[in-house]
Amino acid sequence: MTASTFGYFDDANKEYVVTTPFTPLPWINYLGNDGFFGLISNTSGGYSFYRDAKFRRITRYRYNNVPMDSGGRYFYINDNGTVWNPGGRPVRTELDHYECRHGMGYSKFIGRKNDIEVEQTTFIPLKDWCEVHRVTVTNQSAAKKSVKLFSSLEWCLWNAEDDGANFQRNFSTGEVELEGSAIYHKTEYRERRNHYSFFSVNAPLAGYDTDRQHFVGVYNDYSCPKAVMDGACTNSEAHGWSPVAAHQLDVELAAGESKTFVFVMGYVEVEPENKWQAPGVINKQPAKALIARYDTAEKASAALKTLTDYWDELLSRFTVKSDDERLDRALNIWNQYQNMVTFNMSRSASYFESGIGRGMGFRDSNQDTIGFAHMIPSAVRERIIDLAATQQSDGSAYHQYQPLTKKGNADIGGNFNDDPMWLVLAVANYVKESGDVSFLKHIVPFEDTPEVPSTIYDHLKASFYHVVNNLGPHKLPLIGRADWNDCLNLNCFSTEPNESYQTTQRGDSDVAESLMIAGQFVLYGNEFIAIAKLLGFEADAVDAQPHVDAMVSAVKEHGWDGEWFLRAYDSQSQPIGSSNNNEGKIFIESQGFCTMAGIGFDDGKAKQALDSVEKHLACEYGVMLQQPAFSEYNPLYGEITSYPPGYKENAGIFCHNNPWIVVAEAMLGRADKALSYYTRITPAFIEHLTERHKTEPYVYSQMISGRDAYIQGEAKNSWLTGTAAWNYYAATQYILGIRPDYNGLQIDPCLDASLGDINITRQFRDAVYHIEIKQGGGTGKGIASMTIDGVDVDGDVIDYQKFNGEHEIKVVLN
Amino acid sequence: MTASTFGYFDDANKEYVVTTPFTPLPWINYLGNDGFFGLISNTSGGYSFYRDAKFRRITRYRYNNVPMDSGGRYFYINDNGTVWNPGGRPVRTELDHYECRHGMGYSKFIGRKNDIEVEQTTFIPLKDWCEVHRVTVTNQSAAKKSVKLFSSLEWCLWNAEDDGANFQRNFSTGEVELEGSAIYHKTEYRERRNHYSFFSVNAPLAGYDTDRQHFVGVYNDYSCPKAVMDGACTNSEAHGWSPVAAHQLDVELAAGESKTFVFVMGYVEVEPENKWQAPGVINKQPAKALIARYDTAEKASAALKTLTDYWDELLSRFTVKSDDERLDRALNIWNQYQNMVTFNMSRSASYFESGIGRGMGFRDSNQDTIGFAHMIPSAVRERIIDLAATQQSDGSAYHQYQPLTKKGNADIGGNFNDDPMWLVLAVANYVKESGDVSFLKHIVPFEDTPEVPSTIYDHLKASFYHVVNNLGPHKLPLIGRADWNDCLNLNCFSTEPNESYQTTQRGDSDVAESLMIAGQFVLYGNEFIAIAKLLGFEADAVDAQPHVDAMVSAVKEHGWDGEWFLRAYDSQSQPIGSSNNNEGKIFIESQGFCTMAGIGFDDGKAKQALDSVEKHLACEYGVMLQQPAFSEYNPLYGEITSYPPGYKENAGIFCHNNPWIVVAEAMLGRADKALSYYTRITPAFIEHLTERHKTEPYVYSQMISGRDAYIQGEAKNSWLTGTAAWNYYAATQYILGIRPDYNGLQIDPCLDASLGDINITRQFRDAVYHIEIKQGGGTGKGIASMTIDGVDVDGDVIDYQKFNGEHEIKVVLN
Repeated sequence: MTASTFGYFDDANKEYVVTTPFTPLPWINYLGNDGFFGLISNTSGGYSFYRDAKFRRITRYRYNNVPMDSGGRYFYINDNGTVWNPGGRPVRTELDHYECRHGMGYSKFIGRKNDIEVEQTTFIPLKDWCEVHRVTVTNQSAAKKSVKLFSSLEWCLWNAEDDGANFQRNFSTGEVELEGSAIYHKTEYRERRNHYSFFSVNAPLAGYDTDRQHFVGVYNDYSCPKAVMDGACTNSEAHGWSPVAAHQLDVELAAGESKTFVFVMGYVEVEPENKWQAPGVINKQPAKALIARYDTAEKASAALKTLTDYWDELLSRFTVKSDDERLDRALNIWNQYQNMVTFNMSRSASYFESGIGRGMGFRDSNQDTIGFAHMIPSAVRERIIDLAATQQSDGSAYHQYQPLTKKGNADIGGNFNDDPMWLVLAVANYVKESGDVSFLKHIVPFEDTPEVPSTIYDHLKASFYHVVNNLGPHKLPLIGRADWNDCLNLNCFSTEPNESYQTTQRGDSDVAESLMIAGQFVLYGNEFIAIAKLLGFEADAVDAQPHVDAMVSAVKEHGWDGEWFLRAYDSQSQPIGSSNNNEGKIFIESQGFCTMAGIGFDDGKAKQALDSVEKHLACEYGVMLQQPAFSEYNPLYGEITSYPPGYKENAGIFCHNNPWIVVAEAMLGRADKALSYYTRITPAFIEHLTERHKTEPYVYSQMISGRDAYIQGEAKNSWLTGTAAWNYYAATQYILGIRPDYNGLQIDPCLDASLGDINITRQFRDAVYHIEIKQGGGTGKGIASMTIDGVDVDGDVIDYQKFNGEHEIKVVLN
Repeated sequence: MTASTFGYFDDANKEYVVTTPFTPLPWINYLGNDGFFGLISNTSGGYSFYRDAKFRRITRYRYNNVPMDSGGRYFYINDNGTVWNPGGRPVRTELDHYECRHGMGYSKFIGRKNDIEVEQTTFIPLKDWCEVHRVTVTNQSAAKKSVKLFSSLEWCLWNAEDDGANFQRNFSTGEVELEGSAIYHKTEYRERRNHYSFFSVNAPLAGYDTDRQHFVGVYNDYSCPKAVMDGACTNSEAHGWSPVAAHQLDVELAAGESKTFVFVMGYVEVEPENKWQAPGVINKQPAKALIARYDTAEKASAALKTLTDYWDELLSRFTVKSDDERLDRALNIWNQYQNMVTFNMSRSASYFESGIGRGMGFRDSNQDTIGFAHMIPSAVRERIIDLAATQQSDGSAYHQYQPLTKKGNADIGGNFNDDPMWLVLAVANYVKESGDVSFLKHIVPFEDTPEVPSTIYDHLKASFYHVVNNLGPHKLPLIGRADWNDCLNLNCFSTEPNESYQTTQRGDSDVAESLMIAGQFVLYGNEFIAIAKLLGFEADAVDAQPHVDAMVSAVKEHGWDGEWFLRAYDSQSQPIGSSNNNEGKIFIESQGFCTMAGIGFDDGKAKQALDSVEKHLACEYGVMLQQPAFSEYNPLYGEITSYPPGYKENAGIFCHNNPWIVVAEAMLGRADKALSYYTRITPAFIEHLTERHKTEPYVYSQMISGRDAYIQGEAKNSWLTGTAAWNYYAATQYILGIRPDYNGLQIDPCLDASLGDINITRQFRDAVYHIEIKQGGGTGKGIASMTIDGVDVDGDVIDYQKFNGEHEIKVVLN
């Protein structure tokens, strides 16, 4: 265990152990299943929602508050006047012991003060729409003790955006019910909602509160709620204002005795025809059935066991053992865990994403699948169907859709011209992983032609031709509103501060072109051609090939600056990312995508481009997006120039694109560089930088401030970033080189010697491969030999048709 | 002075004196001029903005926070480790003395602890876009003392909505500069903003902070900011995250000595071509010029004097002296003050209106003018022009517009069918007050025909015919999306919780009709006819009259339920507000508007309707909107049935419409009832209910919970409500009966004997009238005799043509 100031990894338990409540930022964990989700910080702050963080917010959370991380599911102990939380906050009482263990789908808090220990384990069971809190209070003293245990949470009035804005209505709508030890939140249930939430405990109450002002007090806060300080709830009934749920339990403990209570906070949907059990009284039957499934400590513990078993199984599908425990920790536990979270959340709800802005992104979610397809391929299949359903028959796509409705977000619309080709990546990766070739013929109508039985293959073809049909003056792809770099807005020219850089646009005459999309088109265009051939659509493949070839030519002719690839042509057809520019001379995206596409491997351009990346963009904390930073706003370039130098797209380290360079370096066979870039931003390798980084040391962040920033190496926007899926993809498929293909698993490592020999267990479709990779003393790129079950094999592919059981693979590297 | 638990009125100083920081809700005051505005609570909480609370928020405020009222311009004293605020919060140190004096455009805080007294006077000068804080620290002890004085505020990143949602961007954009003792907030100035803000003090700094985490500390809050507790700022430089402005002054005071500091927080717009004084360094010239105007205690005090003189003059235009000081207090000070605030703010920014929702309302703002036209008629003229410019040539209007752009809000659109006729009220009232008949010929094109030189009169005509052209099956006005009662949604049928009740609509076949608009049409239709005649447009008057007459007939034939007026016909043409309904049998709006329109004065219906109001709707705390309350949601009626019984439109006391009944009772000559309804909801008369009411005891609230509520008589949504203008209008024009007309001032009181004899000073256009009203021992309705300058006058009108100087009027009532 490597201890830092703030905590350490406990790999055996798949936990990160936070050892202080006072982390540089709240360090959160995600809980969730197919519908119910929670964010929970290392002090039990955060909130819960059902499916959609904007429209079905269940508990209230206040972003960017003072103090940070305000609001959560707080438990309080009042031990004869000494008041504290097992999570170490918000009460300021210093604990004798504190730890928070963020695990796979659960968080555990252990607090101890004056011989009372409380262990709070919070999780969302696999199958129910509820959050379970198993709370054990132990008297570690030699004498009998009486303490009071309080629970507390604040309800959100469902629509999180409205909840924070429309007070002239909302302060009059709050309604609750109490029955037994369950507090029911039924605001707006009387009208258009067929759902409510509740908070219960499996013990009789000494008191309760449902009105915030009564529980907290008018000028108190959650660090000193009046009822808790007074040692007695007021049994308040909320009508309007701010409904809360707080239980009071008076707990008598003999010396050494422990008592465990189970609190359940749940969400229930009711059939409209069975909304009421009596006039004005909500139908509590489904809630009671749910509560009954967790009404003993044993049941709660069994559900937690089911959850941890589930994660053990999920993570067993790909495990690695190398000489570097940090690599193993990253790939076996945390990167995969983050992949599932990004897959579920897209960019909707984190400590930095307020849950009321972005829905599921077409670009984001397609990419997120590449880190997740090996874990739950069926979920990826469903997600791709949802995404494809928002695509238009011309190949364009809604840039986002709302998870609750699955409808495209008309406010944002489409015309982000990289969007279509990401679908090719997602589908190809899914089919390679799953072997589900029939999916390519699955019917998913385009959004604008619901009557036409279009197949997934038709969607890929539409994506391909969307690029072909939207070329600019240099025969390079038109960028539209933006490509992957949302902030490079070449067709907007905004001078009004309240207008969107992306959705305020000139119109059809926009001629700016993107080298990033060019590379992306070549890379995934070749993939499309492979799929066409796989399906026997030879004519399609033949038709498509010249477009790809022409794009390669266009890149070489118009996209090469001399030492690296240009980034784009602006609306005046002037190059961006050129040595002729004063600022923004070189960008990472086109270097990554053109090289990943294989452009310039034949003539040295790829190597030269990557050398230029190292020379101009790489720094201690990662690879910067571009250099030199823009010192002034340029309306021709848009939002990228709006950021202070060193932050975000303006020369920050935008981690999402760093693995593109890792992949490219691996393709080029430079194992040391590939590993170096990978380890500069991968959390397990930079634990020593935590104080500078500030964000959680167990997950990737979207951005790390670059060389031009006031504070370099400071991370922001942790958790919800394509960085997770892409780094996992780069590390497993290009560094370890375990690469699914249509006909089997290719083994093509690019492995730095420092990682030593490596053992991998890989579940692939219905097969399980135990793969031993031995260093060969050479470049580390590609294999010198491979045996399967002791038999030499030609080439580097494990043919799935032949080897679909459990097999031993031994590989020696070049 | 009538003391309550929380404070008292100081009429001589035109102040309300709050005597505890711990009021039931934050009790706020408004500061402002033509561009710069502030909300300030009795503990100096609140925020500032330039012109538009959504798009130009200057300081950050967190609504519905825990504790309530979080964020503000806080001053801190650290007196050798004892830390406190002159405003009594957010530090929890109990003061030896606290008072907050909310005055006309300023708030003064006096705090005392351990022989140190701090007086903080905060105001916005009449002419500059800044907030001035004059802070005097006095050593009341007999020994020398050294204390540290800290200032603190948190910048909002301009767009208040984005500031609370888009953290993945906003945490990277914050930028500041420091020069001398001024901290400059320049976030986004580098890109599309040509404006910045600053916070300065006229003394050298012992320290400063511009980064919140450094000043407050990571897990501290404004009740214990780390730098203040430590006694030393850290001189932090904000880059991203949350920029703040905090000054530290080390103050040495001899025994008995006082020192005064002037802090100025201002907003500056810069010409785009002069944005920078050096690369990356903002042009501070305009800020320095502004700061220089308030850089001594004397200058600050002089500006405050100018402000109080201004208010003394404004309020001198209409003063009353009666036997009831509460009436005088209401009409001479607080109601007029609230009228100006509602005129300025519409419904945009209060403790209940978050400033990011509603803009200026067409309906609201037209009505707000009727309480304000006598104060600054020229401002009303400009407002009417802005409003008329959002009207369409068919008479319909955008329901709201944004104050910064003056553009109609397309999200909300139009089709609220009461909107058009409010323009008639506003224009008529303005012309009567000002005598500015030429305004009727002022050119203001309709929004959809910018090339046509339409006059204000054309707008009124379009309003009139918008009703005529939108009649339903009973020849009553179609209600459209809603009439004045936004929550009576008869054409929507919403069953989805996230859709708007008003803007989700069926379409053109909507047949629901409104008796409220019917009464409104008769009342202001007659006014339109009078205006046509005034301008000599006799043909228009002749054409219009039959439409008004037909409406009166339609009301009598289809709008009378037997004992009161119906409220509406729903989309099925079934009556609402009928004894045949199970709930919602009687509504206030149609009783008010049909009787104010004079309908049923000839046949007893008006009296019977008002008797029914008294019998069914009146209760101790005011007149409820309807009875019986709706117990269930009814999609045919919409939002009104969404509220729990007793709240808001669902049988709450919606104060805005209570004065309609006051006016109607006064027209009917029932002085006791008119006064009774008026005093039930008028703040000065119900100070004893403050603990129940909770809202500020000096201003009206939008709503008081009704008889069906869990807690009756609890007020909500104080300050920004049409209640202010309408009560002032009812009390001055119908109880006192001082009523402007086109040709002069009509004197037609309806005065309860309890008010005794009354003396009024009324500035009317360029005349000043000193009016003495003597009780006549009769009904109190209308006058028995009137003399002007000692000469008997026929009738009840002071003819302005004859009497346009200063005159003595003596009136004896019937």
